[in-house]
Amino acid sequence: MNQYYTRLLPYLERNQAYQTALALLSWDAETLAPPAASDYTAKSIGILSEEAYHILTGDEVQTLLKKLDTKKKQETLTVSERAVVRLLQKEFEKLSCIPAKEYREFSELCANAQSVYCRAKQNASFEDFAPTLEQLIAYKRRFASYRAKKQDNLYDILLNDYEEGFTTKVLDDFFIRLRDTVVPLIKKVVSQKDSIPKEYNSRRFPIEQQRSFCRFLSGYLGFDFNRGVIAESEHPFTTSFHNHDVRITNHFYENNLESGIFSVIHETGHALYEMGVDDTITGTPAGSAISMGMHESQSRFYENMIGRSREFWEPLFPKLKETYPDTLSDVSLEDFISGINKAEPGPIRVEADELTYPLHILIRYELEKEIFNGTCNVSELPNLWNRKYEEYLGITPKSSAEGILQDIHWSMADFGYFPSYAIGSAVAAQIYNYMEQQIPLADYLKSGNMVPIREYLRDNIHKYGAVYPTNELLKKMTGEEFNPDYYIRYLTEKYTALYHELRS
Amino acid sequence: MNQYYTRLLPYLERNQAYQTALALLSWDAETLAPPAASDYTAKSIGILSEEAYHILTGDEVQTLLKKLDTKKKQETLTVSERAVVRLLQKEFEKLSCIPAKEYREFSELCANAQSVYCRAKQNASFEDFAPTLEQLIAYKRRFASYRAKKQDNLYDILLNDYEEGFTTKVLDDFFIRLRDTVVPLIKKVVSQKDSIPKEYNSRRFPIEQQRSFCRFLSGYLGFDFNRGVIAESEHPFTTSFHNHDVRITNHFYENNLESGIFSVIHETGHALYEMGVDDTITGTPAGSAISMGMHESQSRFYENMIGRSREFWEPLFPKLKETYPDTLSDVSLEDFISGINKAEPGPIRVEADELTYPLHILIRYELEKEIFNGTCNVSELPNLWNRKYEEYLGITPKSSAEGILQDIHWSMADFGYFPSYAIGSAVAAQIYNYMEQQIPLADYLKSGNMVPIREYLRDNIHKYGAVYPTNELLKKMTGEEFNPDYYIRYLTEKYTALYHELRS
Repeated sequence: MNQYYTRLLPYLERNQAYQTALALLSWDAETLAPPAASDYTAKSIGILSEEAYHILTGDEVQTLLKKLDTKKKQETLTVSERAVVRLLQKEFEKLSCIPAKEYREFSELCANAQSVYCRAKQNASFEDFAPTLEQLIAYKRRFASYRAKKQDNLYDILLNDYEEGFTTKVLDDFFIRLRDTVVPLIKKVVSQKDSIPKEYNSRRFPIEQQRSFCRFLSGYLGFDFNRGVIAESEHPFTTSFHNHDVRITNHFYENNLESGIFSVIHETGHALYEMGVDDTITGTPAGSAISMGMHESQSRFYENMIGRSREFWEPLFPKLKETYPDTLSDVSLEDFISGINKAEPGPIRVEADELTYPLHILIRYELEKEIFNGTCNVSELPNLWNRKYEEYLGITPKSSAEGILQDIHWSMADFGYFPSYAIGSAVAAQIYNYMEQQIPLADYLKSGNMVPIREYLRDNIHKYGAVYPTNELLKKMTGEEFNPDYYIRYLTEKYTALYHELRS
Repeated sequence: MNQYYTRLLPYLERNQAYQTALALLSWDAETLAPPAASDYTAKSIGILSEEAYHILTGDEVQTLLKKLDTKKKQETLTVSERAVVRLLQKEFEKLSCIPAKEYREFSELCANAQSVYCRAKQNASFEDFAPTLEQLIAYKRRFASYRAKKQDNLYDILLNDYEEGFTTKVLDDFFIRLRDTVVPLIKKVVSQKDSIPKEYNSRRFPIEQQRSFCRFLSGYLGFDFNRGVIAESEHPFTTSFHNHDVRITNHFYENNLESGIFSVIHETGHALYEMGVDDTITGTPAGSAISMGMHESQSRFYENMIGRSREFWEPLFPKLKETYPDTLSDVSLEDFISGINKAEPGPIRVEADELTYPLHILIRYELEKEIFNGTCNVSELPNLWNRKYEEYLGITPKSSAEGILQDIHWSMADFGYFPSYAIGSAVAAQIYNYMEQQIPLADYLKSGNMVPIREYLRDNIHKYGAVYPTNELLKKMTGEEFNPDYYIRYLTEKYTALYHELRS
C-alpha cells in the first residue's frame, strides 16, 4: 500500500468513530430520546462535530492529500483508494475554509433547530421558525461563499454537495420538461378524480398488525436483520453507521394502510444500498452511497417500479388479506393495484403519489433558488409557497403545518437536497428500463423471488458505495449518463394507460 | 467565578460530550444494535475513549488542577466546584498514569469482551471466555499497579474506584458479620422451605401486559418520562447521560410475574437518583451519583424496603389483579406479600431474594480478592465458585452459565464493583431506619402517595450528585457514617418474623 495512503488510515478510523457517534446521537434523538434531552444532545453534537472537523482539516491530512494529489502517486492507488482520496479532498475543501468555531456553532444550531422546527410545526406557526431559518440560511450562504469562485452561483455550490455535476442549468432543463409533462397529465387525472375507488385504504388497520406485516415485507425485499434495525419515528428515514449497521424507521397510522407499507418499501430500498456496500470499503468515505440522488433512485425503484406493480403483489396480496381478513374481504387485487397507483393532488409531499410527487420537488427547487439568489426573503416564503401550490397543483394549504413547515429538511440546513428526490425518480426509471432488458424482472416478482433483483443492484450499484460518481456509475451500468427521457416516458405511459383503462 | 475554574469549563463540556456518546453507544449495543455491528461499535468505543482520555489528562487540565490545589484557591470555590476539582483530580490520577495506547486497547478489549462473554455464556463454556478474562484481569492489575504505593493492596485500589474508603479491611469485617447472621437464618428457612406457597408466580403472564403494568409502576414511583426512557435488554440496567436523559431497561419472562416487577422498581430507584441531581451540576463530574454503593442503596431501598412492603401493595394490588383478572383470581394480598418475600437459596444472583442475596456478593468478593492477591488462577475459578456456592448456599450450579458465567460485570472489567451491592443494601437499611423516624413512610405508601418519599430522598441525597462522599452524605443525612448494624438487624428481624409467623 502507498505509504502516504497508509498514514491516512488512522484519520479515517477516527473520523468513522465520530461519524458513528454523531449518526447514533441523531438516530436516537429521532426515535427514542426523552424530550428534555434535546438541548443537551444538541450541545454534544456541536462539540463532537467540531472535533470531527479537526480530524479531516488538520495539517497532517492536508499534507498527505497533497502528496497523493499527483498523477504518479495516484497510479499506485487502487480504484477504491483513489475514490477515498477524491472524497476526502472534496470534504477537506468544503470544511477547511470554515473557521472551527463557526462550524461548531452551526452544528449546534442545526441540532437545536430541529426541536424549534418541531414545536413551530405543532403550533402551525411559521413565525416561530423564521428566525432560526434565517440563521441557517445565513450560515449556508456564508459557508458556500467561502468556497465560491467569482462566477459561481451559491445555490450551485450547495447542489454540488448532494449531487456532483447537477447544476441549476441541468436541473432547470430537467424540471421544465417534468413540469410540461406532468402538469397536463394531472389536469386529465383531476378531471376524472373519482374514477378509482380507494375507500378501503382508510379503514381501521391495527398498528400491531401493520408493524408485523411491514417487518415481514422488509425482510421479503432482502433487509438483513443481522445488520439492521427497524424502529419508529415521526417521519420514516434511513441512517447508516456503516454497512453492518443500517437502520430504518417507519410511522404507522391506524387509518392508512398504504402509508406504512410504502414507507417500509422505500426505506428498505435505501437500506439495501447501504447494506450492499462492499466490505473492502467499510468505514471509509467511499463506504456509503455516492449521492442522495442515487440513494433515492434505489428507494424509489423499490417503492414505485417494484412496489406498485401488479407482479409484485401477486404472491403477496393473499398474505396482506390474511393479515386483515375482515377489513379487506371485499377488496380484490385489481382494486388494490389501482388504489396504490391512484394519482390525486394533495398538499403533502410525503403522501404524494408518483405522478404529483415531482411537482412538490419543483416547488421547493424554485424556492431554494430564490432564497440563495437573494430574490426572496424568509418572511415572503409562506406566500410564495402557497402561490406555487395553487399554480402547479391547484391546491391551497390550510396552514403552514401542511404548507411550508411540512418538511424537516430546512431545519437540518439541507438546502439543495430536495432536487435529489426528483433526480432519484428519474434514475430509478432509467435503471428500471435497463434492468427489464437484462433480467426477467416480472417473473422474479411473480414468483416472489426478490434475491436476484437485490443482487443485480448490489453488483451494479450498491457494492461500489461512493467509488464512482453518479454519471460514471450509470454509464458503467446502463451505457449512458443521466437521461431523464425514461422517466418522462414512464410517467406518461403509466398514467395515460391507468386512466385510459379506467375510462374505457 | 475563579479564573482557573472558568478555564476548566470547556474541558468539562467536551468530556461530557464524549461521555454522552460513549454511554449511548453502550446503551444502544445492549438494547437495539444489530448483532453484526458489535465489532465496529467496539472499535468506535475504543477510539472515542482514547480521545476522552486525552481531554482529562492533557497538560492544560493538569496545570489548572495544580493551580486549584491550594487552600487559598479552594476557598474561592463553591462546594460543588470543589467537588468537581476533587473528582477531576481523582480521575486524572487514575488515567494519567496509563499510557494512551494501552487505554485505547483496553477500552476496545472491554467493548469486545462483552460479545465474547455472551457467546461463552450461551454455550455454557467458561473456556471460551477464560483467555479474554485473563487479559482483562492483566490490564486491571497493571493499571492498578501504576497507581499503587508500596504497601498498597491492588484490590483495595480497585475497590476505592467504586466506593472511596471501603477497603478490604472494612469489607472483611462487614462480610463476616453478614455471613454469621445470614447463613444460620438461611438454614432455618431451608428447613421449612415449602411453607410459603408461590406457585402463582410461574403462571402465564403475557409480555404485553407486563410491559404496560411495569411502565405504570415506574411512573407511579416517580419516573419522569420527559427525562427518561424505558427499553428492554437481556439484563435490566440503568444508564444516565445526564440528569435530563436517564434510561432504564427491563426484561420480561412470560412465566415469572415478579421478575419484571422488581426489576423495574429496582431500576427506577437508580433512575430517580440520577434524575434528582441538581441542574447546577448537570454535565460536570459532580453531576452523577457519588458511588455505586449509594446508587445501589437507592435501587434497593425502592426494591426491598418499599417494594416488598405490605403498605406499598395495599393500593396497588387491585390494579395488579385487574391486569391479570383470571390468572390471579385466587391470590390474596397476603399470599402475594409472603410470596415476594419468600427466601430460597438458588444459583442466580439476580434472581436471589433479599436474604440470600448478600451471600452471592460475599462469594464474588472472596473470589476477586483471591484473583488480585494472586492466590488463584483464572482456570481454577469455576471450581472455587462451585465450592463456595456449596458451602454458603448449599447449591451446586448445573453449568457455568448458571455458575461463574452468570454475571456480565467481569466482561466489562468491573472488578471491585460487586461489593457495592452489599454496601448498597446496608446503606438502604440505614436510610430506611432513619426515614421511618422522620416522615410517615407507611402512611404515604398506603395512600399511594410516592412523591414525598422521592422528594425526601432528592433533598437529602439525589440533588447532591457526587458533591459529597458516601460517608459525608450519610452523616449529613442520618447523623452517622456507614453503619451495617441496621442491615443486620433488619434482615434478622424481618426473616425471623416472616418464618416465625408462618410456623405459628
